Amino acid sequence: MTDGAVGRTTAENAELALLLEVAGTPKPGNVDRHRECDDLRFEQFLAGAVGAREGFRRAAAGDPLGAAFRRAIEGMSAQRGGNTQFGAVLLTTPLVAAAGRDALSPAGASAVVAETTVSDAAAFYRAFEAVNVAVADPPEGMEPLDVRRGSEAVPVLERRGLALADVMERSADRDGVAREWVGGFERTFVAAASLREREGPVTDRAAAVFLDLLAEEPDTFVAIQHDRETAEWVTERARAARDGDLDPEELAETLVDRDINPGTTADVVAAGLFVALERGMPV
Amino acid sequence: MTDGAVGRTTAENAELALLLEVAGTPKPGNVDRHRECDDLRFEQFLAGAVGAREGFRRAAAGDPLGAAFRRAIEGMSAQRGGNTQFGAVLLTTPLVAAAGRDALSPAGASAVVAETTVSDAAAFYRAFEAVNVAVADPPEGMEPLDVRRGSEAVPVLERRGLALADVMERSADRDGVAREWVGGFERTFVAAASLREREGPVTDRAAAVFLDLLAEEPDTFVAIQHDRETAEWVTERARAARDGDLDPEELAETLVDRDINPGTTADVVAAGLFVALERGMPV
Repeated sequence: MTDGAVGRTTAENAELALLLEVAGTPKPGNVDRHRECDDLRFEQFLAGAVGAREGFRRAAAGDPLGAAFRRAIEGMSAQRGGNTQFGAVLLTTPLVAAAGRDALSPAGASAVVAETTVSDAAAFYRAFEAVNVAVADPPEGMEPLDVRRGSEAVPVLERRGLALADVMERSADRDGVAREWVGGFERTFVAAASLREREGPVTDRAAAVFLDLLAEEPDTFVAIQHDRETAEWVTERARAARDGDLDPEELAETLVDRDINPGTTADVVAAGLFVALERGMPV
Repeated sequence: MTDGAVGRTTAENAELALLLEVAGTPKPGNVDRHRECDDLRFEQFLAGAVGAREGFRRAAAGDPLGAAFRRAIEGMSAQRGGNTQFGAVLLTTPLVAAAGRDALSPAGASAVVAETTVSDAAAFYRAFEAVNVAVADPPEGMEPLDVRRGSEAVPVLERRGLALADVMERSADRDGVAREWVGGFERTFVAAASLREREGPVTDRAAAVFLDLLAEEPDTFVAIQHDRETAEWVTERARAARDGDLDPEELAETLVDRDINPGTTADVVAAGLFVALERGMPV
């Protein structure tokens, strides 16, 4: 940063985190700056990040969390690729709100989550109307709260008095983003520390941290789109890549060929990048 | 764009144009998503684009052009790569101001230029204090107005009563961005039309239009950093690449090896992308 430069705002850091995440390569199974699909392109992630910023700005300014999240998703959706960064935005928004209160820590972010209301939950459900998101079928008895119902589920939320934190609590066993929300954003803060400790280009660090995370824990998005067995197989392959027994570029090709997309792990990297940027990691 | 998506603002389109420009590959001699230098990285262009948006927002809102431009440059400079997009921001800002008045046309943008004042010129000079920009030595008699003097040149501007348009007029013979400013943004609007007419991913179109422009006219940034002869040699090679007699990827390697960076041509592509996005080109 040169004299005369103006530091980035919290919302700018959140947008930049999404951009750095997708630029990191190789990130096996995900769109990155060397790999894209015909119907989901690198440029659509760029547009998604640009569009998300206004929602982040509102979250940082203290607007209701659900409404800010919904605005971020509506802005993200102004491109033709569909769901580019839904999970990353969902994971990052409470952290942005915490940073807006000067409380970007596991406790500060958990306080943001704890304060969510039924109206935040309603906005969260409405956000699903802007974009198609692959999600798991709801557990038995939860069908009325299937997120794919969008605003139709709102009366049920209201009747049951479910805040957004309650909704996340109910998904935490099968969704890695929800697990972060209700578990103090543990993996996110570990990823942020690792991003800051590493050296070299930030996008290379993002790719390395992605591989570490993927080697540690089965990706829940893979488990949803395929099955638990596939997610575990990916973890095992990622471990081999992390330990130098498999070229990550080769793993990337394999996962693309098999249409396996560890999206939740990428979400954690994006959120980790946001925390690292807020804590002063230079670009 | 899905139902429920929120369209991009003018400032968002301007930022996205900078992002799409740097993502386009191959763009021989320039940083793109497959090529970067150790001291000028892809990620720094991402940060530069994010930082520039606030200045674009001000330009679109009708703030004085020079001040908006200066803010864009100060925001762009919050990264360690130095000058990432100075020329692109300079070329795009009057177009953003024109779009903010619903007058994004050669005439509308020229009106914005014609209305610039001495105070806009002063802000333009002050912007050079935020970042190191490679520029030509000023012609004889113009030394007191060397942009590298930054705010020290301001009293001279005031004494001579030079508006920003006058400053650009004086540089138009040797600087391609200044030439656009005072010549109705001719190449920019041609590039925008070509970007919209082409098919396929926007970043591929950006790369193709870059090659067309480079094949058409010597890049003034190359002429400044090297010499006129080098710039003409690049044009001749770009023509061969455009006509299929040379692999653009090979040309990209050659230019990187020889440290030749056709930056002005990239600036025109960025500005063209902005116009195309404003005119409805989907991403």
